[in-house]
Amino acid sequence: MSGSPTDSERKAMRSEFGVRLRTSMDHYGPLCVGIDPHRKLLTDWGYNVDASGAEMFSMRMLQAANGRAAAVKFQESMFERYGSKGIAALERVLFAARQMGIITIVDCLHGGLPTTISALADAYFKSGAPLLADAITLLPYYGARSLSGLIDEALDNGRGVFVASLTSNPEGASLQTAIRQKGEYRGKTVAYGIASTAQKFNDTMPGMGSVGLIIGATIGQWIDESGIDPSQFTGPILSPGYGWQGAEADDLRTVFKGTKGNVLVTVSRFIAKNGPDISNLSAATEAIALDIRQALMDATLEADDSADQA
Amino acid sequence: MSGSPTDSERKAMRSEFGVRLRTSMDHYGPLCVGIDPHRKLLTDWGYNVDASGAEMFSMRMLQAANGRAAAVKFQESMFERYGSKGIAALERVLFAARQMGIITIVDCLHGGLPTTISALADAYFKSGAPLLADAITLLPYYGARSLSGLIDEALDNGRGVFVASLTSNPEGASLQTAIRQKGEYRGKTVAYGIASTAQKFNDTMPGMGSVGLIIGATIGQWIDESGIDPSQFTGPILSPGYGWQGAEADDLRTVFKGTKGNVLVTVSRFIAKNGPDISNLSAATEAIALDIRQALMDATLEADDSADQA
Repeated sequence: MSGSPTDSERKAMRSEFGVRLRTSMDHYGPLCVGIDPHRKLLTDWGYNVDASGAEMFSMRMLQAANGRAAAVKFQESMFERYGSKGIAALERVLFAARQMGIITIVDCLHGGLPTTISALADAYFKSGAPLLADAITLLPYYGARSLSGLIDEALDNGRGVFVASLTSNPEGASLQTAIRQKGEYRGKTVAYGIASTAQKFNDTMPGMGSVGLIIGATIGQWIDESGIDPSQFTGPILSPGYGWQGAEADDLRTVFKGTKGNVLVTVSRFIAKNGPDISNLSAATEAIALDIRQALMDATLEADDSADQA
Repeated sequence: MSGSPTDSERKAMRSEFGVRLRTSMDHYGPLCVGIDPHRKLLTDWGYNVDASGAEMFSMRMLQAANGRAAAVKFQESMFERYGSKGIAALERVLFAARQMGIITIVDCLHGGLPTTISALADAYFKSGAPLLADAITLLPYYGARSLSGLIDEALDNGRGVFVASLTSNPEGASLQTAIRQKGEYRGKTVAYGIASTAQKFNDTMPGMGSVGLIIGATIGQWIDESGIDPSQFTGPILSPGYGWQGAEADDLRTVFKGTKGNVLVTVSRFIAKNGPDISNLSAATEAIALDIRQALMDATLEADDSADQA
């Protein structure tokens, strides 16, 4: 037998994003290192506030994350602020991360009409994409279904997405818990409709799916108001807000009770404030990784306990 | 008296986005030429499907728009698909547009937490910004108030924004007409809360404000369900969907009845399909500009008539 692989063979050769992330989380735990080159951090580190400063910062954060975290997440706006030079820096750090074998998420929070956002598959997902990443983040204001075309392209290329659902900021509560008057999720909240649409993609995938949600760790009682039960979601859940934004281990235990190892907790400044010294950065990354792993194990165990008592 | 201007003097020297757009619309009418270098269009024109093809396409569309339209709108994802090379192309066409004196809108539909999207002021609004534009588009899924910091930075620099409110895609209807259960706009729709938050920025501005909305021309009866009355909004309204997406002059007359010259209608492929011949492109731009101007004049007049009959 000779010749190039068929489309279905080629697809089978690419491992799904959910499978790869699951393996990495089993290995390194639930920490995702947020790589957000804020101007203040660059200044604190003694780096230039420009594209090259952002690139040097990112490389050092990557080194600290390597072998200590399941994934890294790049805040795209912190690169875009320097225009094409910043995007070129992001291209290079994404390339470095791929060489290290680290799972990459680009937090670009894109959204819009299917005809326009499908262009992003060329940027992020397809073989040879300039900003090739394992996953990107999406904003569903145009409706969760407006993202389907781009999500299909991600899945076809073994990539994934995280769709914003219940975010950790108080200004989002009124919008995200609004009740739908029409459509398939009539009578349910905005956030619930998004989570359910995401779950449908994951229903067909064994194990952890490749279509994730963003659910903030600081949302407290909104989780009940939203109608979403994170323990029923089988894709990955990206959770910002730990540390800097005020969420603590207790919040993780409350919000993610009963989840089964699919919560990825993003920590950025809480780690970066220990830089640029690489041994301090690495030690902080390890300590925070352990704290988060413990908190999420408690969340799993608490759910098991209540199941035992029931 | 000598020395450099004070902050308030510097601010007074910069004309507001709303004022500049108003002047341009009075001069050239309500057409905004959408510059969306789709792969198919590049191929149809005989251009390369790459960053240089997108740049050449954009330059030709700019030439057609110059002196025939109030503004141009660039679809950022169509440049981002080529990574940093695409963004560099967008930087150059934005520069060319500034030299021509054309008002520019970058349709990037960004959103997210205030701490992260405020970085976009460096990219788009501040003096010396690599992607300096007159306005950008924003997605309010994190709540309209999450955008306030970036909007303030836009206004401080004489720039503007367009916030997605009621978009023209059917998948968005269920989310955008959901009823808020909490917050200042309790009992109102998601889209209404967004429009009202935008209007608050405009309340303090004489004439047309600088904080705009995106309201699709194809939304039909949703406009009633949303509770939004476009005729009461004093910022600019960006309306996609004319031509290619199925909206016609009648839709403009219905949805924007009673508005007073603040509706900017985006047309992209309907013009571009006439390229690359520059005289055909220019003729199409002029013809469409006239059609749209007439339809929106009718919308204004119809409201005057009903006021007379009342």
